[in-house]
Parts: sequence; C-alpha cells; structure tokens
Amino acid sequence: MDSISMMGSSSPVFLSSTHLQQAQAFFLPNGLKNGVGVRDGGDFGRTARIPAPNTVAILGSGDFSKCLTLRLLRCGFHVVVGSRHPKLAAQSFPHVVDVTHHEDAVEKANVVFMAIRREHYSILWDLKHLLEGKILVDVSNNRRVNQYPESNAEYLASLLPDSMVVKGFNVLSAWAMQQPHASNTSTQVFICSNSLEARLQIMELARQLGFLPVDMGALSSSRDIENMPIRLFPSWRGPVLAAVSLSIFFFAYSFVRDIIHPYVKHKQSNFYKIPMEMVNRTLPTVAITLLALVYLAGQLAAAHQLYYGTKYRHFPLWLEGWMQSRKQLGLLSFFLASVHVVYSLCLPMRRSERYLLLNTAYQQVHANVENAWNEEEVWRVEMYVSFGIMSLGLLSLLAITSIPSVHNALNWREFSFIQSTLGYIALLIATLHGLLFGWRRAFEEDAYRFYLPPSFVVALALPLCVILGKVLMLMPCVARKLHRIRRGLDSSHYRRPRLEPVGSAAHVSPERVTIM
Amino acid sequence: MDSISMMGSSSPVFLSSTHLQQAQAFFLPNGLKNGVGVRDGGDFGRTARIPAPNTVAILGSGDFSKCLTLRLLRCGFHVVVGSRHPKLAAQSFPHVVDVTHHEDAVEKANVVFMAIRREHYSILWDLKHLLEGKILVDVSNNRRVNQYPESNAEYLASLLPDSMVVKGFNVLSAWAMQQPHASNTSTQVFICSNSLEARLQIMELARQLGFLPVDMGALSSSRDIENMPIRLFPSWRGPVLAAVSLSIFFFAYSFVRDIIHPYVKHKQSNFYKIPMEMVNRTLPTVAITLLALVYLAGQLAAAHQLYYGTKYRHFPLWLEGWMQSRKQLGLLSFFLASVHVVYSLCLPMRRSERYLLLNTAYQQVHANVENAWNEEEVWRVEMYVSFGIMSLGLLSLLAITSIPSVHNALNWREFSFIQSTLGYIALLIATLHGLLFGWRRAFEEDAYRFYLPPSFVVALALPLCVILGKVLMLMPCVARKLHRIRRGLDSSHYRRPRLEPVGSAAHVSPERVTIM
Amino acid sequence: MDSISMMGSSSPVFLSSTHLQQAQAFFLPNGLKNGVGVRDGGDFGRTARIPAPNTVAILGSGDFSKCLTLRLLRCGFHVVVGSRHPKLAAQSFPHVVDVTHHEDAVEKANVVFMAIRREHYSILWDLKHLLEGKILVDVSNNRRVNQYPESNAEYLASLLPDSMVVKGFNVLSAWAMQQPHASNTSTQVFICSNSLEARLQIMELARQLGFLPVDMGALSSSRDIENMPIRLFPSWRGPVLAAVSLSIFFFAYSFVRDIIHPYVKHKQSNFYKIPMEMVNRTLPTVAITLLALVYLAGQLAAAHQLYYGTKYRHFPLWLEGWMQSRKQLGLLSFFLASVHVVYSLCLPMRRSERYLLLNTAYQQVHANVENAWNEEEVWRVEMYVSFGIMSLGLLSLLAITSIPSVHNALNWREFSFIQSTLGYIALLIATLHGLLFGWRRAFEEDAYRFYLPPSFVVALALPLCVILGKVLMLMPCVARKLHRIRRGLDSSHYRRPRLEPVGSAAHVSPERVTIM
Repeated sequence: MDSISMMGSSSPVFLSSTHLQQAQAFFLPNGLKNGVGVRDGGDFGRTARIPAPNTVAILGSGDFSKCLTLRLLRCGFHVVVGSRHPKLAAQSFPHVVDVTHHEDAVEKANVVFMAIRREHYSILWDLKHLLEGKILVDVSNNRRVNQYPESNAEYLASLLPDSMVVKGFNVLSAWAMQQPHASNTSTQVFICSNSLEARLQIMELARQLGFLPVDMGALSSSRDIENMPIRLFPSWRGPVLAAVSLSIFFFAYSFVRDIIHPYVKHKQSNFYKIPMEMVNRTLPTVAITLLALVYLAGQLAAAHQLYYGTKYRHFPLWLEGWMQSRKQLGLLSFFLASVHVVYSLCLPMRRSERYLLLNTAYQQVHANVENAWNEEEVWRVEMYVSFGIMSLGLLSLLAITSIPSVHNALNWREFSFIQSTLGYIALLIATLHGLLFGWRRAFEEDAYRFYLPPSFVVALALPLCVILGKVLMLMPCVARKLHRIRRGLDSSHYRRPRLEPVGSAAHVSPERVTIM
Repeated sequence: MDSISMMGSSSPVFLSSTHLQQAQAFFLPNGLKNGVGVRDGGDFGRTARIPAPNTVAILGSGDFSKCLTLRLLRCGFHVVVGSRHPKLAAQSFPHVVDVTHHEDAVEKANVVFMAIRREHYSILWDLKHLLEGKILVDVSNNRRVNQYPESNAEYLASLLPDSMVVKGFNVLSAWAMQQPHASNTSTQVFICSNSLEARLQIMELARQLGFLPVDMGALSSSRDIENMPIRLFPSWRGPVLAAVSLSIFFFAYSFVRDIIHPYVKHKQSNFYKIPMEMVNRTLPTVAITLLALVYLAGQLAAAHQLYYGTKYRHFPLWLEGWMQSRKQLGLLSFFLASVHVVYSLCLPMRRSERYLLLNTAYQQVHANVENAWNEEEVWRVEMYVSFGIMSLGLLSLLAITSIPSVHNALNWREFSFIQSTLGYIALLIATLHGLLFGWRRAFEEDAYRFYLPPSFVVALALPLCVILGKVLMLMPCVARKLHRIRRGLDSSHYRRPRLEPVGSAAHVSPERVTIM
Repeated sequence: MDSISMMGSSSPVFLSSTHLQQAQAFFLPNGLKNGVGVRDGGDFGRTARIPAPNTVAILGSGDFSKCLTLRLLRCGFHVVVGSRHPKLAAQSFPHVVDVTHHEDAVEKANVVFMAIRREHYSILWDLKHLLEGKILVDVSNNRRVNQYPESNAEYLASLLPDSMVVKGFNVLSAWAMQQPHASNTSTQVFICSNSLEARLQIMELARQLGFLPVDMGALSSSRDIENMPIRLFPSWRGPVLAAVSLSIFFFAYSFVRDIIHPYVKHKQSNFYKIPMEMVNRTLPTVAITLLALVYLAGQLAAAHQLYYGTKYRHFPLWLEGWMQSRKQLGLLSFFLASVHVVYSLCLPMRRSERYLLLNTAYQQVHANVENAWNEEEVWRVEMYVSFGIMSLGLLSLLAITSIPSVHNALNWREFSFIQSTLGYIALLIATLHGLLFGWRRAFEEDAYRFYLPPSFVVALALPLCVILGKVLMLMPCVARKLHRIRRGLDSSHYRRPRLEPVGSAAHVSPERVTIM
C-alpha cells in the first residue's frame, strides 16, 4: 500500500520517474541483482527475444572488442559477442562471455556495438530486421581525415534507417580502456546521435564505464568525431604556416643585407654568421610580428563592430579563423622569443666573439687608447637588454596561463587581464626593445644596403601600427561606443550570442587575446 | 503483480527510491519519453497549472537567456521564456521555445531561472504568489566586488521568502554555454541554497547540462559566488604587495649604497648601472626573502602549536592568511629568481662589460702582468654560480608541482617532499649562494658605505634565521613533541580537524609549504 | 492507476528499475524528503533494527571521522558515530549527529565506515553478527609501504567474512574533505571490493559526496590503494637511479681524464674546474644517454615483436618496466639538458674565463698577432651551439606535452608525433651537437689520456646505436613486417590486447615514447 500510494501521488516531481528509470536502468549492471533475489528472474530473464537490460552486444572480435568486453564485465554488464567464427574467437574471450553468431548476439541485447570496419558493414544487411529499434554504436575510425564522402556513422544510419545509430567511443585507445576508471588519462568520449534518447542512454553507459561523455549533438557531428583521433594539430596549421613564411622572408631579407651585401661590396665573407647571428636576427622579428598579429585580429574585430554598430553580426570567415588562432600565434611568438633569448645568451660563448674581442684588445693597445668607454652605447645596450628581459617575463606569464589546468583556475576577468592587458604591455616593451636595438640606424644612410631598410625597421612597422590602433581604441569617444556595442545596447535585430557573463559584459571583448 | 510485489518489499534499500526519483526525475529530458508511449500523457502532460517536470522557465530574454535556452534544448528540456515584450523577444529564440509573459512562464515550470538584473527584481513582486514553493535560480552578476550590502541572491530570498532561492550558473560565460558539454574548458558551476532539496536538484540539473556542479552549502556563500567572476587575483594581492614593497626597499637601499655613495664620495657616475645591475641586485634579494617568508609561516605555526600544546587551536588570522599565501609567495620567489638568472646571463653581453674588459686588458698589458690569475676569486665565483644554478633547479621542481594538473597527480607525501624537503634544501643552497657571493665583504670596513652593510647582509639575515629555526625544529626533543601534537595525542578538548589522512598523521604539518 | 500501469509494463527497459533504485537510493540524502511529506515515515522510518537508507555509521571518533561526518551532513545524510566513550566524543561533533556505542551505531545503518586503526579491529569481533550483510568501508592507512603481510581491508574481510568489505576513501586528507565538493583539488577516491554491489554503492556515495570514484576492481587491489597515500615517487625510482649511476660514472671518468691526468702528467692543478666545468661535462652526457635509453626500450620491444612475429606475446618484465619508465627517463633527460644549458651560459661569467681571456689578450699583444681568427674553430662552435639550442627547443616541446592537462588535450596521433617523431629528431640533433663539440678529437692521439677516449666518444656510442637502429626499422622490409604485426595481422593464437584505437592501428607502436 505504501508504495502504491507513493506512486499514485500527483506530485509533479514524481510523474517522470519512469523516464529516469529508462534512461539509467537500461544499463544497470547485473551485479546489483544480488540483493533482489527472485524478483528479477521469471518471465523476463535471459530468455530468447527479450533482451536483458544489462546485456550489451558487440559485433566483431578484434582488439577493440576484447578491451571493451573486459571493461563492460568489470562494470557488471553481460556481454554477447557476435563473430563470423564464434568457436575460434571464443578462445580469446573470458568464459563468462557469450561468443556467438552475429544474428544471435544482436537478438540478445538492445545496445549493439559495431566493432567492425566500414568495409564489412555489408554484413549488416541480413541483420536489418533484427536491428530495428535498437541502438547501434558505431565505434569505427578511418585512416585518413575525410576518407569517405560521408562519415561511417552516417553511412551506417543510411543502411539501417530503422535503428538508432550513435557515434562514439572511437577516440578510446585499447590502452585507455584497460586503465582503471576515471584515472588521470584522457577519457573523454564524444557522442552524437539523431536520437536524443539513444544519445542520452549511451552517454549514461559511458559514464558507468568510467569515461567522461561529451554531448556532440546530432549525427552530423560524426564526421568531426571520426576525424578526432586522426587529426594532427589542425588548429596549429595556419599559425605554423605563418611563422614559417615569415621566418623565410626575414631570413632571406637579412641574408641579402648582411651576407650578400658585404660580400658583393667589400668582398667580406660573413658566412660564419649564418648558423647563429642570422638565425638570431630572424627569430625576434618573427616573434614580434606574430605577437602583433595576435592583437591585430582583435582590433579588426573591433573595427568590424564599430563599422556595423552591432556585436551580433558575424565576422567574415577569415577573421573568425584568425581570432581562433590567437592562442597558437601567441604561443609560437613566446616559443620563438625564448629561443631568441637562448641564442642571444650563447653569443658571448662563440669563438668568433672571442677572436673579435681579442683583436679589439690588440688594437686598443696598439692605438694606445686607455679607455674605450662610450656612454651612449653603454646606455643603449643596458636599456634594450633590460626591456627584452621584461618583455620575456611578461610573455612567460601569458604562456603559463595557457596551460589548460592553469587556465581553468582563472575566471574570465583574470584571464583577460593576463592575456590582454599584460599582453599589450609585453608588445609595447618588446617594441621598445626593438627600437633601442635599432637606435639611430633607421636614419643613417649607410644602413640602407641595396636600398633595403634595416630588418628591425621592417619588423617594427606592424607592432607600431597595432600599438597605434590600441591607442585609438582607448580614446574616450571610441571606447564608449565600443562599450555600448559590446553590452548589447544597440538596436540591431539580428542577434548572435557572444561571450559575456551576465552583468559583466565589459569583461569580454574581441580585442582581448585568448592564448589559451 | 511483479512490480507491486517489488514495491511492497520491505527491503530497507527500496524505501527511499521515490526520493531519488524526485531528485533526478525532476529534470528528466523530454526526449526520453519516446520509448514510453502513452503512459506519460493524459492527466499530467502540459496542461495549465501543473508544470511538466522537464520544463524550465527563464525570466529575461538577454544574451544569457538565449545561450541557456540553447543549452537546455540541446539536452532535451522544454524551455519557457518570460519577457516584457514576448513578441519582440520571440524573434531571437528558436521556434520550439515558448516565449510569453512573465506570469505565464512562471506558471509553466517548477524551476525558474532569473536572467534579469538586480535592478529589475521589483517586477517579481507581482509574481510572488506564483513563485511560492518553486525553485528560483539567481544567475546574476555584479560589476564590482561587494557592490551591494547583501548579495543579489540573498536580496532575492528576502523578497520572496516562500520560494527556494538557489545561487548558481553566474560564473558561466555565454561562450562556455555554447561549447559541447564536458569539454576541456572550465565548466565548474558553484551552487548554494538554504534548501538542500533545491540545491541538490539544481546540481543535478547542472550535471545534466554537462557542467561540473560544486556544492557551496548555504545561501550565505552567494556573496562569494557572486564575487567569483569579477575577482582579480585576490589571493595574489598580499604576496604581490610584499614583493613590490621589498623590491622598492632593496632597490632604494642599493641605490643609496652603489650609486649615491660613489657619486658623493668620489664624483663617480655609475648611473648606467640602474637598468641592469641595480635591478639584478634587487631581484635575488627579494626572491630569497620571499622564499624565507614561505617557510617562516610554517615555523610560526609550529611555534604556536608548541606553545599551546595542541593542534586544535586556531591560528591567529594574520598567520592563517600568511600560510594560505605560501604558494603565491613561493611562485613569486621562483619568478623573480628566474628573471635574476636571465639578467645575470645577460651581463656579459653588455657594452659596459666589454669596455671594462678591454680596458683591463690594456692595463694588464701596460702593467706587464703576464698572469692575472687569482685562485681565491676563481673558486669563489665557480662555487657561487654553481650553487645558484642548483638552487634554481630545485625551485623549478617546486614550481612545476604547482601546476594544478601535476599537483593532482601527486599524493600528499610526494607533494610535501617536493615542497617542504626540497624547498628547504633550495633555501639552504640559495643562502650559500648569497654567502659565497658576499664572501668576506661583510667583514671589510669599506663595504659599509654610509654605515650601511652590503645588501647581501641585509638579504641573508631572514633566510639564516629560518634555517636556524628549522634546525631547532629538527632537534629530537622539539621534533618529538611536535609529532605528538600533530598526531592529535594531546589532551585538549577543543578540537579542530586538520590536514592528516588517517594513520599518516606525520605527513602533514604546517611547516610544509604548499606551493600549489 | 497510472503508476500501476507504468509499473506493470513489460518494457524490457523497465524491469531493472528496482536495481537502480537499490544502487542509488540507498544513499539518498534525507534533505530530499522535504517534498515527500508523510509518505516516508510510518513503518520504516528510524525505528530500531531497520536502518534508514540515508543513514551512514562511522566507527571511531578521530579527525577523519569528524571531517567525514561534516561532509556527510553537508550532503544531506544522517550520521551515527560509534565511539568507545560516546559522551566525551559527542562534544566534538555537531548536535545533529547521533554519537553512541559501537553496537548501536552499527545497527542503525547499512553502510559502516571503519575509521579506526587496524590495531583495534579486534573490537569488531563482538559486532560480527550485527555487521552481517552490511557494507564495511575500510578507510585505514598504514605508516609504511607493505607494512603488513596482507592489506588492512583483506584482514578485515577475513575477520568478517559475512560482511561486504570495501576499501576506499583512504587517499583523502581531512583537508580535502573540508573543501567544497568538486573543487580543483585532487578528489579522486579509489575503491575496490569483492562485492560488485557494494563497490557500485560506495562509488555512488563517493560521487554524491563530490569526489571522483575510481573503480579498482576486486579487494586484491586494496594493497595498492593502501600504498597510494604513502608511496614516494615509485615510478621515478628506477630512472633516478639510472641517472645517478650514470652521473657518478661520467663524473669519475671525466675526473680521471681532466683533473688527475694533467695533475699527474704535468703537475697542472685544474681542481677549480670541479664545481662548474666537470659538472657541465657530466650533465650533457647523462642527458643524451637517458634520451637514447628512452628510444632503445621501444626498439627492443620492436625487436621482440619481430622475433616472435606477434604483438600478443608479453614482453619480459624488465622490458615492460623499462618501457613504463620512458616518460620519467625523458623528463630527467630534459631536466639535465636544461641545467646543462644554464651551466654553459654561466661559463663566460666566471672569473677563470675572464683571467684566461685577459692572459690570452696579453699574449696576443706580446706575440704581436694582429688577427687570431681561426675559421674552422669559428664554424665548429657556431654550429654546435646552434644544434644544441635546436635540440633543447625540441625537447622542451616533449616536456610541455608531458604536463597532464596538455597531454589530455592531444589525441594519440598528435602525442606520438611530438614524443616519437620530434623526439627522434631531438636525439639526432643532440648527437650532432655532441659530434661537432668533439670534432676531430676522437681521432687525435693525445686526446686518449690514460688510454681513455674522450668522454663525448663514450657518451655518443649509445645514441649512435639507437639512431642506427631507427634507420634499420625505417627500412621498407622491416617497417612493412612490423606494420603487419602491429595491425594484428599475424596468425598467433595467443592474443593480448594492445594500444590501438580501432582502425588506426598504425598510430600506436612500442617504439613511440610516451613521455607523459
């Protein structure tokens, strides 16, 4: 009576209990039956045609199938494996596993893992009627990105339109599956399906197996999910390409000015400078250019917003891509700047440096110059070295907050303080570092070899523009307008959600770099 | 019959099933109804006055409301949006969303998100009777820390005493809500409420939306939660202030001794030393002082425990705050030490260094000194440089184990081995580095310019005291007493839980620094 | 009626709902009863002998007991504490906690935490009949690794064979338990039990308390779990031992050649070289040897697979252990290489360097050599310094991807690209760095002091072998055979699951280092 009165309650909270039971009970490990006794058996047990709720079928008997089986058993599930050669395959599975023919396996469970390659999906043709209404989990991977015109899961769904196809588990290595659950290793499992019911059930199953399910929405995401385990730094491709192109350009530029020009004009062989001096001249120019590019993206976005008077209008695709590459551009900039520092620090330990110093000492003695002190030169070098170190120190803070676990410990305001405010200061100091390095050479005629300005002039043009742009954006009239736009106080009707936490709209703005 | 016998079971495990159903079923996504068929409909469906369990209302139609709506829809919930201008607002929501008036929205759901600003809470006055017994989730943020005398959520609770007010979701940016669930980004959601029932339900809702709920207890935590997204490194404020104050002091001290004194006494202009040598003299003194402060806090805590003979007595507030700043102090110390290293390494590349070297060579030639070798000086420099590098190497291990994800992979014993044992060794070696740098100058009269001792003497006083304190604490009589106190073997009746894992009490002690 | 028809449904999904209720409802926080009203009370409430489902008993009243109590209360559970001196103990617990005698406490709950030391397990003897069929959670820790022949939990299980013993929660410090749930701190809880039912229930309880349960399987894992909080870098022991042994060997080798030999042969005292030059000669040799050892392990594994023609045969234990140490070996190699860089950079700031330079300048002037330039020496040094920097840059990428949270953001292909491809390139460049450093000295007779070859010759032998081995493995005939073996295309019947994601078998191979 007690239970009935409970069930009959009209409490709105109660009504949906069965839905929950469906979502979760489906995957109830069988171990829990221990305490229930006879209530479970009887009519519904493991008799043919009515799959037991805690049974999972796996088609295929390869490595993935074996590891998944062990994991499922460990978490208290029954496993039925479907194989073309059940007797042979059974040897490599534990005894409690029911290794049988495909048809038989499919009949015994409501959830079927497809641990077979796409090329063999044709065998499913004969099982079509048995798979009707069941959940099929496509775990397959491809060898190359976008290998087929449609994803494996979408292909499977087109073959079996009456089944609920779920994509997932493909990012797991057999190794990850053998680890204890919830260990420190990456155990995110990306899941998508056109059936919300199936997707939620498989996400719950993933959770019960100790993985972290990530809801990727409809089956159209399956292409992305299939590309995940075989992608190779797609987000780094553009920034690395930019860095390499800039490096080649600046290296060639310096080569012409500093090696070719003295050789042609004065028959002076400076080729020994290639391994270190030339490299060390290229590195900082590329680094500061990349850092400027990081902030240029945000300024172009701000200009776009000012021009259209709204934040709800999409940026052009190239700008969107550029803005999403800011983290990578910033990290590359820091990496090149660090290597530049090591190169610079190694300069005094070179033999060439030593020989030149000794020769200078010889000449000073012969010229009888007691004191070679040049106050201007001393100050210039002390200042530009000091600015360089400061700039590196600030950039290292930006890099540290890009480590995922450090980044996660910051709120948005702290993150943007580091990445935007400190980042701009780092750019400013790095520019001063470059200007002090160049000093008056930009205005000396003989610095223009082959009519080419010194490379620091070329390298500092972009950073100076970006700093100028920032100054413009900080002017009250522009800043106020931008602030209004970013708080959504425009009258535009086309609205696109953007990055603000409620009530702190001012903390998020596209000119803030996310070196995450 | 089967189900009834199940329900009627007197198993103690069974009884509370309905509680669970309430907790979780409340937020059951509607997609799961697919498999249930007619059982769900009928009397309870979506008819007026009896809210459907999977329906969530949102008051307000701004950016946050839009993003939350999309997230809820994606996870299978029904959404009703309450707006002052439903027709206008409806344009920016998907068609499946029911955009209506506030009253209507509130009636249709048991959970109501308040996505409106605190200034507009007055509109809730008219809805008071409708909100009775419902869960209100306050997602609002402020612009400044502690902007109002009471938190927004507490203000809301005072307006609507008959509703269950929950604070939460305010830390989410609209961007975080648009990401796939459970991605790598920070998706912690801090939740508090005076109603345990409401808190657990909203935590479950957060989990279903793919966030990581963090239980913050009663509504009095709402002030902290509201400050979270707008705080700016509060835990760094004290340590940074300490570092800046020390920097100013030591810089001024060196300036007087090394710049003013030679200028006044010998008319010697050493101003060129400011950008590098002075900075590089300030950095290591501040770094070693900060490192000593890290361990001094633990020693004061130990002294407090020894004095009162118990570990269950609270530390004074200033000591508590100091101990919680040890991580930040240690990281600042490492950062300054690293910058010091870069500055030191850059010294040989200065022009001033070059000129002085050339001048020395000139003088050596003129004085006809064939060999300038000074064995003592050679040994002193080789030793102090070597000690400096070792100290930096150890400090870098402390810094690496402060990265959250590295720290999480260590147990308490490993963490305290790195942070306490290696940390003390680093302090010892750094002190030796300083002593070797100073050498005999502490005892030379002309090192006392303006009667001021050399800055290394001032800088090393505190580290030497801390090392002495550690030696005292390692003495058997003191160590034994401290060990007893920390294992809780005192007779005090006032007891405060402290940091020990059961049975390994010895591994946790306040003198161990947690540069986490 | 509605609920009965729901319950009577023959839906296969439905049947197991009670199992789920058991698993989860057992730990239902009592706060949820608020909305249920009278339905809960009556027959089953808190009357004697029938434990309420949301009640947890804790035996013992120490620090752990107190912290666990606070956590349980916060999450809505009832807590009964069993103590030998209930009246005394009650003073240090909140008033809502029922502090009573052991027998009484045990009767009131189905889950009993054993927060007492192993030495006092004997008191359980009298409670044996009361504990029958209940879940006992052993949270005890030991002081030393493997302190007793059997783990505490196994000992408890042998004392009480009719109870379901679960090991868990021992890794938690009292501090971790006082934190808000799900905070950034490490809150993994490792759980094992021979009863699947008990294990799943306690994992669910852990989750409800805001911890991350990790399923460790059967009770035989309890020894590992008990060792966890007191282990001290077990995985680093071998690699550190290897590094220390190699350091001692190479240091002694250099000492004999560079200090003893000149002293014996030429009465030349080079002892000043010990603190820096000798250390800096040892560091790179150890670093490159460790890096070679990383890749040698993979090559031996590949040779093993080629020899037996299958990937399913276990590696010998020593090789298995070596392969699992590759991450640590690689990180040590990077650490030593970094310290080597700092040492090298500090060389020019030594007094000895300065004196030698000045003396050389003196001699050059006296010998009247205007230009000391030596083109070959210049090129050699520029090249080897440049190669050294490149190698360090690549190694730093390997080290960064070893940070857990960075590693988690990479897929297997990206990780192995960094760790294997870039790692081999780093080894190659480091070897070139060493060869250029040595230059022709390997072939000069007077470089063989005491008939010992220069240390760079000894140090580079192993890296050269490993590079040769890699070249062999890249030869088409070998590579093809290895590829076939690793895709599982051999006919072996003994099969062991290995690391491949399905369909991308080629991306996982033992020669790929996992500096994780």
